[in-house]
Amino acid sequence: MMESAIPLHLETARTRHKRVPDDYQPPYPSFVARYKPTVSRVAMAYFGVQYRGTAPLAATDALKDIARLFASENGPSHWDQARYVDQSGFENVVTVAYWNDVARFDAWFAPAREVWTGRQREGVGTFIEVLRPTVERHETLFSSPDRAEGVAVIANGMSGEVQEHAYWGGMRDRIPLSQTDAMAPAGAPELIRDGARLRVVAYDNLCLIRSGQDWSDTGASERKLYLDDVEPVLRQGMNFLRDDGLAIGCYANRYMQVLAADGSATEKSYGQSWWRSLAALERWAESHPTHVRIFGAAMKYLSTLGPSAKLRLYHEVTVAAADEQLFEYLNCHPKTGMLAAVETVGA
Amino acid sequence: MMESAIPLHLETARTRHKRVPDDYQPPYPSFVARYKPTVSRVAMAYFGVQYRGTAPLAATDALKDIARLFASENGPSHWDQARYVDQSGFENVVTVAYWNDVARFDAWFAPAREVWTGRQREGVGTFIEVLRPTVERHETLFSSPDRAEGVAVIANGMSGEVQEHAYWGGMRDRIPLSQTDAMAPAGAPELIRDGARLRVVAYDNLCLIRSGQDWSDTGASERKLYLDDVEPVLRQGMNFLRDDGLAIGCYANRYMQVLAADGSATEKSYGQSWWRSLAALERWAESHPTHVRIFGAAMKYLSTLGPSAKLRLYHEVTVAAADEQLFEYLNCHPKTGMLAAVETVGA
Repeated sequence: MMESAIPLHLETARTRHKRVPDDYQPPYPSFVARYKPTVSRVAMAYFGVQYRGTAPLAATDALKDIARLFASENGPSHWDQARYVDQSGFENVVTVAYWNDVARFDAWFAPAREVWTGRQREGVGTFIEVLRPTVERHETLFSSPDRAEGVAVIANGMSGEVQEHAYWGGMRDRIPLSQTDAMAPAGAPELIRDGARLRVVAYDNLCLIRSGQDWSDTGASERKLYLDDVEPVLRQGMNFLRDDGLAIGCYANRYMQVLAADGSATEKSYGQSWWRSLAALERWAESHPTHVRIFGAAMKYLSTLGPSAKLRLYHEVTVAAADEQLFEYLNCHPKTGMLAAVETVGA
Repeated sequence: MMESAIPLHLETARTRHKRVPDDYQPPYPSFVARYKPTVSRVAMAYFGVQYRGTAPLAATDALKDIARLFASENGPSHWDQARYVDQSGFENVVTVAYWNDVARFDAWFAPAREVWTGRQREGVGTFIEVLRPTVERHETLFSSPDRAEGVAVIANGMSGEVQEHAYWGGMRDRIPLSQTDAMAPAGAPELIRDGARLRVVAYDNLCLIRSGQDWSDTGASERKLYLDDVEPVLRQGMNFLRDDGLAIGCYANRYMQVLAADGSATEKSYGQSWWRSLAALERWAESHPTHVRIFGAAMKYLSTLGPSAKLRLYHEVTVAAADEQLFEYLNCHPKTGMLAAVETVGA
């Protein structure tokens, strides 16, 4: 039985249509995270630490600090850690934490923020990027229902097979707010200086995507197919967004390698990017050669292998209201995250 | 200055949204045919003659007959002729004629119909496929504004650069009726026997596409690129639709070679297909590997070469009401055109 990606309790009288007819049948199954209906809002907080070369003591300390804070009262229900080398050659370790109770997050956050961006750390930059979206402004998608990642880990479980996927526009159609709202961007990002802390204030309908890959369960031939044929194309797309994304509305892109608890690399990765709007993300996804090739390859792969595919793909997309966002940077280089969207030099 | 593909006089209060925001900028220019506002309906009539092997005398006679009829009072404003070999190995010569005045078409048609499908011809089958759509149910798209093809030849001229193209959903957004109507298919095709004449009666929102290529102006290197890299992929897609289209809602597909007045081959081709619905055509176009490759290649090609590209691409798409259609077949094999959509054998 096919379900809508939009949960029943978030269905509203539409003023905007889905892109596919009611009898649309996707060519392969996909699944979405289901929250308890009592969950009206989630929090997702990216804590980054940035440095050149090998980790200075201050970086290791920072990671210890955040782990300790996560373990404290009202800490997140789930978090993971990943690393990447950015376009300026800096190493970045980003820890993402998720809460399904925003009151808990709010109670927890203030001291953590002070620890993270409220004090100078020797030889490292730090940043916080937080969204606190209502569930109407948010969607997920999973190629298999038996391993949650990211925000879905804090959900109540997975849906059955959903209808709104495997076509251009499915991402939008899965976001409950799309039933009534075009989610157009309402402004431009602005820089606010608070001493050494740089804050970026954005606008309604800024867009975040985290899009992940997990090849840890693949056998030899599927792994080879992924690593030889799919991953290089994905990397090309990620590099394009990192280096040249601004012109098409991608403020920042990080192609992250997920780390195990001991800091070693896992066989999981994700791309995380900030977009001017959902529409800008849609246009890139459906017209940029690198992503079109990824999508085409995935369609073919999943249509052919079906449930026997061991590669796992997922993503989460949020279109956040202005008052659901926080971007704060301390001692980071000017191309870090949302700083890339504003002019930080000069008066 | 960017125009809407929907002409001003056909703009209505929307109940359905375009897929792109108002500030969307396509990555390369495209153009649409513009009719005089007094043209409320056009007629497009496909006259086919079908035979095995070399043309029997009856086929040559039939083509003379239709040319004579076209030259008679109230004949079409424009017509062209093309050939293809179908999946059953039959040669088909299809002559397409266009009228921008349906009263003229109606006055002309009855005797032509009798000549074409009202009498047996030795060793050949004949068929007529007619649409008489309102201009609200119809769109065109051209990669350059200086050579009209198909129905656009009978228009008043070409638009300036239009906004609604180069994204999935542009086709729908260019059809004026999409402002207020999902254009869902309302029924299933049925066979009606009228002696030896077989008629197919379809339903509201059956869809026709004619999608053409013209490489006659290309220089050596562009021609090689088209013939070596693009055409084989296009042909694969056309063959897929011809042989396996029914399962995805393509009733019939013809990949036609356009003929010159003397019957020789030109450097123009077009695909012409009948679809259960616009949605079915959309799904194929955006997910079938062959078409995705064509679209991706065209995007790249036209974005890179821009106005210097000499390859010309165009299409016309109609979503017809039931009373705007006529399908009539005499002595054709059962996979001919819309006959493929119905069971013709048995009682």
